[in-house]
Amino acid sequence: MRLLLLLCLSLTITILAQDEKAEPKTSRQTNTCIGCHEMSTPGIVEDWKRSRHAQTTLNQALGKEEIERRVSVKELPEGIDGDIVVGCYECHSLNPEAHTDNFEHMGNAVNVIVSPNDCQTCHPEEAEQYSGSKKAHAVDNLRKNPVFDLLVNTSLATFHPDKNFETTVLPELNDVTCYACHGTEVKVIGTKTVSSSLGEIEVPELSNWPNMGVGRINPDGSQGSCTACHPRHSFDIKVARQPYTCGQCHLQPDVPGFDVYKESKHGNMFSTLKEEWDFDAVPWRLGTDFNAPSCATCHNSLVTTPDGDVVMERTHDFGSRMWVRIFSLIYSTPQPVSGKTYEITNKDGMPLPVAFDGTPASEFLISEEEQQQRREAMEGLCRNCHSTSWAEQYFTRFHKIVEETDKMTAASTALVAEAWEKGLADQENPFNEDIEFLWVKSWLFYANSVKYGAAMSGPDYSTFKNGWYEMVHNIEKMKKAVKTAE
Amino acid sequence: MRLLLLLCLSLTITILAQDEKAEPKTSRQTNTCIGCHEMSTPGIVEDWKRSRHAQTTLNQALGKEEIERRVSVKELPEGIDGDIVVGCYECHSLNPEAHTDNFEHMGNAVNVIVSPNDCQTCHPEEAEQYSGSKKAHAVDNLRKNPVFDLLVNTSLATFHPDKNFETTVLPELNDVTCYACHGTEVKVIGTKTVSSSLGEIEVPELSNWPNMGVGRINPDGSQGSCTACHPRHSFDIKVARQPYTCGQCHLQPDVPGFDVYKESKHGNMFSTLKEEWDFDAVPWRLGTDFNAPSCATCHNSLVTTPDGDVVMERTHDFGSRMWVRIFSLIYSTPQPVSGKTYEITNKDGMPLPVAFDGTPASEFLISEEEQQQRREAMEGLCRNCHSTSWAEQYFTRFHKIVEETDKMTAASTALVAEAWEKGLADQENPFNEDIEFLWVKSWLFYANSVKYGAAMSGPDYSTFKNGWYEMVHNIEKMKKAVKTAE
Amino acid sequence: MRLLLLLCLSLTITILAQDEKAEPKTSRQTNTCIGCHEMSTPGIVEDWKRSRHAQTTLNQALGKEEIERRVSVKELPEGIDGDIVVGCYECHSLNPEAHTDNFEHMGNAVNVIVSPNDCQTCHPEEAEQYSGSKKAHAVDNLRKNPVFDLLVNTSLATFHPDKNFETTVLPELNDVTCYACHGTEVKVIGTKTVSSSLGEIEVPELSNWPNMGVGRINPDGSQGSCTACHPRHSFDIKVARQPYTCGQCHLQPDVPGFDVYKESKHGNMFSTLKEEWDFDAVPWRLGTDFNAPSCATCHNSLVTTPDGDVVMERTHDFGSRMWVRIFSLIYSTPQPVSGKTYEITNKDGMPLPVAFDGTPASEFLISEEEQQQRREAMEGLCRNCHSTSWAEQYFTRFHKIVEETDKMTAASTALVAEAWEKGLADQENPFNEDIEFLWVKSWLFYANSVKYGAAMSGPDYSTFKNGWYEMVHNIEKMKKAVKTAE
Repeated sequence: MRLLLLLCLSLTITILAQDEKAEPKTSRQTNTCIGCHEMSTPGIVEDWKRSRHAQTTLNQALGKEEIERRVSVKELPEGIDGDIVVGCYECHSLNPEAHTDNFEHMGNAVNVIVSPNDCQTCHPEEAEQYSGSKKAHAVDNLRKNPVFDLLVNTSLATFHPDKNFETTVLPELNDVTCYACHGTEVKVIGTKTVSSSLGEIEVPELSNWPNMGVGRINPDGSQGSCTACHPRHSFDIKVARQPYTCGQCHLQPDVPGFDVYKESKHGNMFSTLKEEWDFDAVPWRLGTDFNAPSCATCHNSLVTTPDGDVVMERTHDFGSRMWVRIFSLIYSTPQPVSGKTYEITNKDGMPLPVAFDGTPASEFLISEEEQQQRREAMEGLCRNCHSTSWAEQYFTRFHKIVEETDKMTAASTALVAEAWEKGLADQENPFNEDIEFLWVKSWLFYANSVKYGAAMSGPDYSTFKNGWYEMVHNIEKMKKAVKTAE
Repeated sequence: MRLLLLLCLSLTITILAQDEKAEPKTSRQTNTCIGCHEMSTPGIVEDWKRSRHAQTTLNQALGKEEIERRVSVKELPEGIDGDIVVGCYECHSLNPEAHTDNFEHMGNAVNVIVSPNDCQTCHPEEAEQYSGSKKAHAVDNLRKNPVFDLLVNTSLATFHPDKNFETTVLPELNDVTCYACHGTEVKVIGTKTVSSSLGEIEVPELSNWPNMGVGRINPDGSQGSCTACHPRHSFDIKVARQPYTCGQCHLQPDVPGFDVYKESKHGNMFSTLKEEWDFDAVPWRLGTDFNAPSCATCHNSLVTTPDGDVVMERTHDFGSRMWVRIFSLIYSTPQPVSGKTYEITNKDGMPLPVAFDGTPASEFLISEEEQQQRREAMEGLCRNCHSTSWAEQYFTRFHKIVEETDKMTAASTALVAEAWEKGLADQENPFNEDIEFLWVKSWLFYANSVKYGAAMSGPDYSTFKNGWYEMVHNIEKMKKAVKTAE
Repeated sequence: MRLLLLLCLSLTITILAQDEKAEPKTSRQTNTCIGCHEMSTPGIVEDWKRSRHAQTTLNQALGKEEIERRVSVKELPEGIDGDIVVGCYECHSLNPEAHTDNFEHMGNAVNVIVSPNDCQTCHPEEAEQYSGSKKAHAVDNLRKNPVFDLLVNTSLATFHPDKNFETTVLPELNDVTCYACHGTEVKVIGTKTVSSSLGEIEVPELSNWPNMGVGRINPDGSQGSCTACHPRHSFDIKVARQPYTCGQCHLQPDVPGFDVYKESKHGNMFSTLKEEWDFDAVPWRLGTDFNAPSCATCHNSLVTTPDGDVVMERTHDFGSRMWVRIFSLIYSTPQPVSGKTYEITNKDGMPLPVAFDGTPASEFLISEEEQQQRREAMEGLCRNCHSTSWAEQYFTRFHKIVEETDKMTAASTALVAEAWEKGLADQENPFNEDIEFLWVKSWLFYANSVKYGAAMSGPDYSTFKNGWYEMVHNIEKMKKAVKTAE
């Protein structure tokens, strides 16, 4: 209780002390931006005002202990004024030569889109890590992989009464479905005139816009959209760390990460206790800042013990802490070495990390040793709240489930293969007939549901909710389809 | 930081000042109510105590700046005491002549149900707007529309082993399904005796009760249930403004508004930041009271800029800001002119806003000009946080998706028509055979899911979660059913 | 407002007063535990530190008014030091003779698993009530019931291309699906060596571990896992009382309790207002501590009026306030008398509480009188916020829905029986063919969804979301399957 008295005292001192300090300054250009945008887009200005960017200069950020920093640049970059806060102009004016979306706007040359390449001015490690991730390549990982491209196009086929299936997908449909999460390719396709309170102004016209997908291809050629997780002009780490952010895309039926988390004990504790936790602290101390992990804890945040010992280093390569890739393609495999998964070829020449007979495309996948290291690191994190045996047996069991689920996928694949062989379905497009839909659902929905449930303790997803039960019923339907036709 | 010191000072002053003020008084009758009900229904009394009604007199409310008022009556209505707070008796005793549920209760004549017609004593604009909305007519919009009535009755058919489908639905089943949200017709069907702590008392007996559906037909003949969104005796605007309220009814698989919102960036920010937002402020200032919209922001609340400039006027006609009606019947159309959609007839004489060949029942739908105005107003709201191009391109893309989704519904309709023509299904009841269920799901579940996802950025709902993928699989199943039968 | 001034004053006094008090002490053994575990499992230690256990001695707990106590033991048990807080050693060292998982660990003999039998040292009433509940017997209620055991094994059948269905389920698959919630049988199967910061240590090796299912069979022979609802070392009543806890297992499609609650008015108010409620108060006063019930309010917590009058006594036999068991087996029945439902036999000799023709196994079910008493008690709770008529009519309607839903199940059962009779399906395993899956889904998913929706006001679950509509479509599919085959 002495603590509380001290707290009151120190608060008073802080108030008085702060008062003496000079408020951090915004740049002349940013002041110009705000002058108009306070009226034309007040929501953006207000959002920014509550951001750390609006309240901190780079020099202040660099003055902190390294472990407390939210910037990874080590010293003031050339040409950057370290004594102004990070305002509109500071971000929207970077690297103009690379930006095809750079345009003259009320006396300043600004870019429409701030890209990871711009953010890396102050956050180079994050940008570097991200650039190697599957997320950064999420567009090409779909469209440059002929199998996935065909699956996308079949899933989004337009069908008109007077025609058959068309596998040409409308760009707008792509933009609101797969590529809404994966990212679109945003290009400058001209200029357009829009009305503003100061009269008509000319702005770049962008294709496949708006979009904030994780692998968005930006007008400066860079890949990614930091705002996907750090929305929009407040860039809150607090938002990024809460599972709702991951829950924009990691959703059932195909990737039920968020759904499983919510039903887990971890998710239960998060939902109940989150208001007492500190989602803003850097470093993020387990046990004191939070009592149960959110997605970010295990998959990317810098996590320390209450005493400040580092348990996990921060990473923005979100797959890099995982060893097994449970997402079925069509079986589970070790994580890929590179984020460019479209470069993978299996022994049958298919752009998949594993052949239908189960042979992995090992040269594209991380080694046994690397898998072991990652698993041990993850168990090390678990061991802060669970016993050694607990953590070890948890993942051993999980691996058994992954293995058995893959066998169910093999069974389902054998049935569709039988249908192809018997001429009951046409393998030319392996995704567009009824039995093929059943087959796709068996690995894309049901097998994933089972494995995600086993990975993060969401038993309902492993059982009835798109789980093993549906996998069994589905195989039964496929057997019936193949058998009835005989 | 000076702000904080000022805040402390002003808080102290406020405390002292408040102390001097007289507490607002409750009426003699309300005091009588509370006397017993504090014991017999303490939950109701406590709920009321924390309400604004319990703490504010109408004169105090009228003393505020108009933009800050929560009442829309302009001056003290005749016969109303403006110096007492709004208690039990003040609401439950209004318009007794209209109330068939009025009864003598411990010396006072009170109504069981407080209706929109009663609430309009102080909230006339809200009641007036609401009375013209689709919500107010939600009961008749189902039961007076023969097509929807048949769909309801088929969806709720009781089936016993010894009989065939019956299309007579049990009232109780209606009450807990469609009409739980749409509202029931509540009538006084007699009186009954119930036990109370003060002995047996006689009360009106109500049919189809309890219910709090949005279009409830009340014993006074009025339509609606304000408590549907402003529950129960605290009438919190805070509750009404949070998406959970809309989420009681606007749910997948048929109307996935709440579900899509939760998965959107807006929903992500809401879930993470809502504790920092002010859901009680009137007017509701974007950027300062909240950083991302909830359902109410876009669809009904009075929204201003941080400076207090009105961006959107308050409305309780919840469809009146929308221009297109994305809910498939069986295609999308412009919004109807009147909330009484059962009055609509299309060119084929069906009570639907569009014919199966796509011809809209234009005379019942808002004009091109009105659509344009509403869209511009909505984009104007978006533009507070998004650029002009962003907002404009967002809705252009959305319209393309609506159009293409309707084509998929046309394809599905052509297939069921083929089944009818070939005698594979009986069109007499177009909703009760397997292929007809597939057809209904194609527009009622899948097409809606795609369009709601496109409207509010929930890509999963446009893709795998009842989305385009299911629409394609569904058509494939229908094709197979029609073809196999040949 | 005087209140606020008083509050400030009393806070100051409290601060000063607290300062004088001696901090409660931890035992010597617990201090030893913490000495190492602060480093090896800091998450556990921090979690415990914020618990009531860490801050309260048993003597302090016993010093409270009985209604405010969180312990049910009446006096200090023999051998217990009432002046130390409840730390690691106090729980992990109890009843060593019963614990096959007891082992020498750094000088102390400790148990790996703290069981309900250990918790009952201070919480005997809770343990006693729980031991008679269906939850406590959740393992045997599946595996000792041949019908359920076959359903589990069929639902989790492994299927390999070269074999037919196998009904032998992998233990690991059991552990992550049905038994994750129901509980596993945890046995000591040997010892193993694990690494620690102090070198290698030997610990018991447990089978089917980790698990925190409600009916877990512990190494001391006891049944249950208190941590299932009171996680993990903070044992928060606050967590247990929030619906997210129940939402780990009570989930759609089979038991959609949590899902329905979220969509109800109660759930809406909870989601919006929960930050203002006190989930920690004992006793829990309706109206003041909360304005709408969560699961715990109706199903197990001690609830009082604002004045402290007891409305419902606390119970840890979670079924004991309910009169009807809406979970379909295959129809609804009165609640069973005993939590050991595997002991039930119906008139056809099946281990089910009702025969397929609808005859209940009455001797195993609670009497009419007991049903009536429980219903009245529940309505008594409702009546704190709802009128007498409201509460009574609500449940009358609910019962009608239960009855009608059971008729739909009878219809579905007649169809599968017809398939068996005609040789279209093999009754030997009544769960593993397509039409049998449809039949199981009709009662396990759709009928439950309808009834849970009617019980707790989630109309979407009674209608489109696995509701009546799906029940009708499902029967239509079954009819088609039986008819087509003719």
